[in-house]
Amino acid sequence: MRICVAQLDFHIGHFEQNTQKMLDAIQVAKDQKADLVCFSELATCGYPPRDFLEFNDFISRSNASIDRLAKAADTIAVVVGGPAVNPVVEGKDLYNAAYFLYEGEIKQVFRKALLPTYDVFDEYRYFEPGHSFTTLDFKGVRLAITICEDLWNLGNENPLYTICPMDELMPAKPQVMINISASPFAWDHAEERIHVLKANVERYRLPLFYVNHCGAQTELLFDGGSLIFSPDGMVHDELPYFKEAIRTYELSDVIAGGIQHEQSKDKNQLIHDGLVMGIGDYFRKLGFKKAILGLSGGIDSALSTVLAVRALGKENVRVLLMPSPFSSQHSVDDARALAENLGIHYDIIPIQSVYASYLDTFKPYFNDLPFNVTEENIQARIRGMLLMGFSNKFGHILLNTTNKSEMAVGYGTLYGDLCGGLSVIGDVYKTEVFALCKWINAEAEIIPWNTINKPPSAELRPNQKDSDSLPEYDILDPILYQYIEKTQGPQEIIAQGFDEKTVLRILRLVNINEFKRHQTAPVLRVSAKAFGMGRRMPIVAKYLN
Amino acid sequence: MRICVAQLDFHIGHFEQNTQKMLDAIQVAKDQKADLVCFSELATCGYPPRDFLEFNDFISRSNASIDRLAKAADTIAVVVGGPAVNPVVEGKDLYNAAYFLYEGEIKQVFRKALLPTYDVFDEYRYFEPGHSFTTLDFKGVRLAITICEDLWNLGNENPLYTICPMDELMPAKPQVMINISASPFAWDHAEERIHVLKANVERYRLPLFYVNHCGAQTELLFDGGSLIFSPDGMVHDELPYFKEAIRTYELSDVIAGGIQHEQSKDKNQLIHDGLVMGIGDYFRKLGFKKAILGLSGGIDSALSTVLAVRALGKENVRVLLMPSPFSSQHSVDDARALAENLGIHYDIIPIQSVYASYLDTFKPYFNDLPFNVTEENIQARIRGMLLMGFSNKFGHILLNTTNKSEMAVGYGTLYGDLCGGLSVIGDVYKTEVFALCKWINAEAEIIPWNTINKPPSAELRPNQKDSDSLPEYDILDPILYQYIEKTQGPQEIIAQGFDEKTVLRILRLVNINEFKRHQTAPVLRVSAKAFGMGRRMPIVAKYLN
Repeated sequence: MRICVAQLDFHIGHFEQNTQKMLDAIQVAKDQKADLVCFSELATCGYPPRDFLEFNDFISRSNASIDRLAKAADTIAVVVGGPAVNPVVEGKDLYNAAYFLYEGEIKQVFRKALLPTYDVFDEYRYFEPGHSFTTLDFKGVRLAITICEDLWNLGNENPLYTICPMDELMPAKPQVMINISASPFAWDHAEERIHVLKANVERYRLPLFYVNHCGAQTELLFDGGSLIFSPDGMVHDELPYFKEAIRTYELSDVIAGGIQHEQSKDKNQLIHDGLVMGIGDYFRKLGFKKAILGLSGGIDSALSTVLAVRALGKENVRVLLMPSPFSSQHSVDDARALAENLGIHYDIIPIQSVYASYLDTFKPYFNDLPFNVTEENIQARIRGMLLMGFSNKFGHILLNTTNKSEMAVGYGTLYGDLCGGLSVIGDVYKTEVFALCKWINAEAEIIPWNTINKPPSAELRPNQKDSDSLPEYDILDPILYQYIEKTQGPQEIIAQGFDEKTVLRILRLVNINEFKRHQTAPVLRVSAKAFGMGRRMPIVAKYLN
Repeated sequence: MRICVAQLDFHIGHFEQNTQKMLDAIQVAKDQKADLVCFSELATCGYPPRDFLEFNDFISRSNASIDRLAKAADTIAVVVGGPAVNPVVEGKDLYNAAYFLYEGEIKQVFRKALLPTYDVFDEYRYFEPGHSFTTLDFKGVRLAITICEDLWNLGNENPLYTICPMDELMPAKPQVMINISASPFAWDHAEERIHVLKANVERYRLPLFYVNHCGAQTELLFDGGSLIFSPDGMVHDELPYFKEAIRTYELSDVIAGGIQHEQSKDKNQLIHDGLVMGIGDYFRKLGFKKAILGLSGGIDSALSTVLAVRALGKENVRVLLMPSPFSSQHSVDDARALAENLGIHYDIIPIQSVYASYLDTFKPYFNDLPFNVTEENIQARIRGMLLMGFSNKFGHILLNTTNKSEMAVGYGTLYGDLCGGLSVIGDVYKTEVFALCKWINAEAEIIPWNTINKPPSAELRPNQKDSDSLPEYDILDPILYQYIEKTQGPQEIIAQGFDEKTVLRILRLVNINEFKRHQTAPVLRVSAKAFGMGRRMPIVAKYLN
């Protein structure tokens, strides 16, 4: 038997395009002489459809796609994910299902049992968990078909669920595991995925065909990296990251084992490629082409601009350099050097006259009150407004260039440098920004080395440096990581050797700035815990603040 | 036996204050000669604690509160909600629990079985559902103690769960139902609550003591309205809305029945009181006192200002009137009249000079491109920036005045009139705004009648009216209601008699403006479906757009 893994990029709600893409892939699979082709989880409607699942109209359209695919599944079988209506009145109205299509009809529907409801996942919001477990015989081979999380209750010390669906299926003596998935990227996730799937293969001693979604859906990046495991636990094949791919395997070859074909997993490469895909898909899926960014001469906007150029092409990226009275000459020089290295259109628009008109307007009310964060924010907001002006007039999307460290402690101006339709590096800590810039510069100076090497500054008052108000980033970032990614409390972090006062101050800053993060752009997610839909915090809480 | 219902306002994460408040209430209950006092769901930590539940430190502090309360529960029993650690490694790490405290110790822990995971609720994100059901005997009375949703699988045609916890408890022959709850307000929710609880009382023929949380947690308003039902199905008592209250009942009186004491449920009154509480609690819980708003002369900012004054006091509300070259004289006059009616501080700050400086700055780039939405947005953004300048300099929170109809169709400027820390009327449709204003003016003209009666306009270009780009609100709002609250698709709405072109255009506007709503302030929730945490939509979807 020949099994085809079709790792494709689906667009949420775009039933026509998703269906056509699968119909085309079915033809490719036939050309590759496959008996069976597998598509990813909720492939009909795209993952995650979120509250569109509550619309009957949306479900009807998905069902219509399944019907069209079933017609195409004539001499080839198709496994495809889509929502399925729960026929029983009690319980949620839908199942997260895998349809087995063959001979022009729906042969069987498998229901997902383990519904991830944590971090970015909300599946129990929509779906009833499956309770019954059956295999399916196809051309003399018994298949155990599961959906994503159904295999994830193994290989960790604190399992989230009380059952393992494969344990329920094993008495039926399946010969092959198929798992259809929509598992989002984090830079260390491909490794974890292999660990978990390998735990399944080793426990059940079966070959595994694991097909993942690829492509970005707003903040969520799906990296693909679909996997074919031999029963000996070896990775027979791993499909590319961040790219569509359709590959067919002879089952006997996979069962024979002995081949290990895994891709390299370089952190900088993965984050880089993930962000480039994330920017590109955001624009393509929204029907936009052109981006605008503010270029300060600092490292965050420099990195964001490089990524935007790689995603959209240099002809589609425009930058504004907007010096204020407090900007240094080297900032303008560094920003200009980057724009010239990249060959992108740039304009230098000083903000001094608008700034002066604001100060004049405020003067009767502010009187002689001293310069403070108000005036700093005015500068940041003028820049945001100039960028939005260009965005509105010429149809650019403004890209936000705030990094994760700043986002965490609220070191940014709401409606100022926090403006933008998409946050490019809001899930990349400042220390990781440095590493990524150096990695980008490995072969040639793309980002001016001066931008990378000078002390970070917002330049909103004379001689300002980030370290005036924040600890150095090599102290700050590990504390943030422990709090945000590892959910460690103050005592646990202090016990790791960090200064108590610093820890308490940082955690307080994170918590009191929840209101800012509530209003920022979606953040491309590259870590296991990004700001946004995966981290849900109350704003009016009184905890550690 | 005497049972006390303590309907209190808890602050998320503020363990010290919450515990002290309960200790004080225990004393009050003792003074009222109660045998048992009941607090609401997750009372130790406040509801909803959201992802703070993932911090061991947070759970430890809650456990410490339970220990302190247990010590106080010496001669009186206490039922109190809090998270409880799951002792088993499989499954989620916590239960949503009701602790029964008596004689200085934890006598029993009841686990919530039905975990609401829809709309604003995320409980399965954190909690393992309870699977075992037990009653408790206290002073010769057998109690069935459940938590909120556990009673909500009755009384509707499409139950979300496959079990009813009270069905499981009935074989043990309980004599009294106690339900501790944290059930957020919507203007029609108190009625629904009575319907559902009555269905329980009528099915099980038992008295019911239902205690609800009151007070606002950011966008969620908890209205209290705790209920005491007699076994005959009558509402023996209903506690006040939006206020703390501690009341004790003689069980035999409740069982005797025959008393009906229900509060009036006027829609305008409820929305008004809910919003006033929501504004007030937002400020108090964040430690702020003063609000600033932009007053346009239109109805939305007028209503928001009235509500702010009622929540915070006139001495704490400041408004800016910021006419542009396109503002009409009547706008300034109406805004001024409102400010004078309310006795609040106002300043008139024309935006013309800042607007001119922007136009000058943009001129070399925009050249002779015609005036369009760009220039409209610039005006709205200047106003946002002026308000934020005052906010930063003087420590006001900026209140957002966008209504639900505008929010839905994206009729507002990001970083302009969409600025603000809290959206006051973002869950109130424009037609409801009119009704509320008329209700407020019932006895005297507080909001100038001219503000209410003139055609709505953003006044961002000459002679602009909302109806130039949107259908009249009495057409728009019902379409929005069907789509947003009732999740009806285009065909279903058209089948109700609405014009096809209008429906398709409106639904498309709602969907393509998801990116704006992603960046707006939390919205005080007064309906069954508000924008924000209760409505989760993908941004890059291609559905109906």
